[in-house]
Amino acid sequence: MDTNDAPVTLVAGGAGFIGSHLCQALLERGEHVVCLDNLQTSRATNVDDLIGHPRFTFVKADVIEKLPATVTALTRRITRVYNLACAASPPHYQADPEHTMLTCVVGTDHLLRLAEQSGARFLLTSTSEVYGDPEVHPQREDYRGAVSCTGPRACYDEGKRAAEAMALDFARLGRADVRVARIFNTYGPRMHPDDGRVVSNFICQALTGDTITVYGDGSQTRSFCYVSDLVDGLIRLMDSETVGSEPVNLGNPNEMTVSDLVTRIVALTGTTAQVDYHPLPVDDPRRRKPDITRAQTMLGWAPLVPLEEGLSRTCTWFAQELRQADRMPLLSVAAE
Amino acid sequence: MDTNDAPVTLVAGGAGFIGSHLCQALLERGEHVVCLDNLQTSRATNVDDLIGHPRFTFVKADVIEKLPATVTALTRRITRVYNLACAASPPHYQADPEHTMLTCVVGTDHLLRLAEQSGARFLLTSTSEVYGDPEVHPQREDYRGAVSCTGPRACYDEGKRAAEAMALDFARLGRADVRVARIFNTYGPRMHPDDGRVVSNFICQALTGDTITVYGDGSQTRSFCYVSDLVDGLIRLMDSETVGSEPVNLGNPNEMTVSDLVTRIVALTGTTAQVDYHPLPVDDPRRRKPDITRAQTMLGWAPLVPLEEGLSRTCTWFAQELRQADRMPLLSVAAE
Repeated sequence: MDTNDAPVTLVAGGAGFIGSHLCQALLERGEHVVCLDNLQTSRATNVDDLIGHPRFTFVKADVIEKLPATVTALTRRITRVYNLACAASPPHYQADPEHTMLTCVVGTDHLLRLAEQSGARFLLTSTSEVYGDPEVHPQREDYRGAVSCTGPRACYDEGKRAAEAMALDFARLGRADVRVARIFNTYGPRMHPDDGRVVSNFICQALTGDTITVYGDGSQTRSFCYVSDLVDGLIRLMDSETVGSEPVNLGNPNEMTVSDLVTRIVALTGTTAQVDYHPLPVDDPRRRKPDITRAQTMLGWAPLVPLEEGLSRTCTWFAQELRQADRMPLLSVAAE
Repeated sequence: MDTNDAPVTLVAGGAGFIGSHLCQALLERGEHVVCLDNLQTSRATNVDDLIGHPRFTFVKADVIEKLPATVTALTRRITRVYNLACAASPPHYQADPEHTMLTCVVGTDHLLRLAEQSGARFLLTSTSEVYGDPEVHPQREDYRGAVSCTGPRACYDEGKRAAEAMALDFARLGRADVRVARIFNTYGPRMHPDDGRVVSNFICQALTGDTITVYGDGSQTRSFCYVSDLVDGLIRLMDSETVGSEPVNLGNPNEMTVSDLVTRIVALTGTTAQVDYHPLPVDDPRRRKPDITRAQTMLGWAPLVPLEEGLSRTCTWFAQELRQADRMPLLSVAAE
């Protein structure tokens, strides 16, 4: 870390899929970035390209613990805190549900207190999972959701709902200037190949020629936002002086079925892999589509990257990853 | 605490309104009871009568902190943990929302870990607030609720939902034998006179001749369960070998409007106090009524104390309290 007095942006969870793209974008804007990550489900390789950047510092730490001295020493300089710290895919967040809940609640509390002490603006990355398996479609921010608070997804869904509650209380009490993003399905390079998400699963299976596994009958819908669009939304939300602390949906309203996604990825990769159908996991949402009126109106934001282009870039990245991991893909990427 | 090897029951929040009645009932059953309480919104006077009992120990501590050595020293002997620790009325839990959330999440985590280490059965007292302002009536346990996770009640509602999520995860992973009670409106002696609840508010106002303040137009409904019935339900739930870890509603399905409650208390106290109507607070539930089929079927439990009798006992107690507090009531209790 340089020793000058320049303002510092803290990105908790900055080595994760979205976090690493955010760090990169913030550096490109000229910000001084401290990336805090426990590397539990994120990967140091995600920020390999940033290590050595004069305005980038990586600190390995877990937000459920007391924040490390390297961070608290910067309290006076920290002007922005992005909290992306949490395992975000079911197999990862369910591996240690107690840790997931504490990351959401205790981690968010530690970072809110840091923001309070710093006078920094705090942005919580919440999730479309706060809507659960929604009965209202598309989902607006004022929809209260249909979340099972006792099911196997609750450690994450309820953890994030609790984190929102805490953030809004800090805002109401004037303890911190708060922003809350509810992130819908996002995809792109640096997704974890083992995170069990449909985009990464299908692409990896297609590239390696493995059977493509669809959970459910494929008729459930998702709306996929390319990561650069999402990062742009997060930065606009953090920058906004007018949006306030109420949550803002960030996602792509371009809804499609999971089957349609398979078809596109099959076409893009030219794979001859079989498609197998498995039972839907407990509490898996049937439909998901953000209403982004608030983000459009308040932030002037909308996703720009077309699905074909995003998927193509993602396939290219996964092909390279699989090659580097010595898991030679059977197929190269058709498009590009 | 005696030095023998008898099993110990820990009651966190045992000096509160419901907790103190529970401690008393457990002592009457012959149990050794350790009452843990931070006395934040509960009162030491609630357990005055129990102090000195050979099987009762009071420990002042806050569950959000590491559990005190006096408790952990008993780990081997603890066979049951009741978690009632949390401020439970809006003015109390909203006074320090961060502490409320941490009590629900970190406090529950500490007590679940104690139960895990002890091999004790753990009972979480959750709340009808997990249903929020319900759109389904009456509320069954599988109803997912309509909770605002960003509103001023969220620190408690979402805190309890998060606590349920944690408890169920401990159960699913075989870390603890878990019971979850969702408690609906409960009333009786030792309610806090300043907790802003309708029963205590109306009775205190009626007894002192103050104006009776109704929030809303009085048409919103509640279902009031007398505290001895509720305590009986909690003990049955803890005792049950068959009910499992899924939540169980405990409350009285005898629904009435707030206006009707006022009428009964006016009749009971013979007060001439005026009734004033004020705007309904944010997110105040319009209707609340438990479906107690599960408790009836699985625990053989149903409330027994008629409202007139319960209100009469409660009025008597408040009259005595107000007298002792040197706030001489203008009226005595008509019935009894």
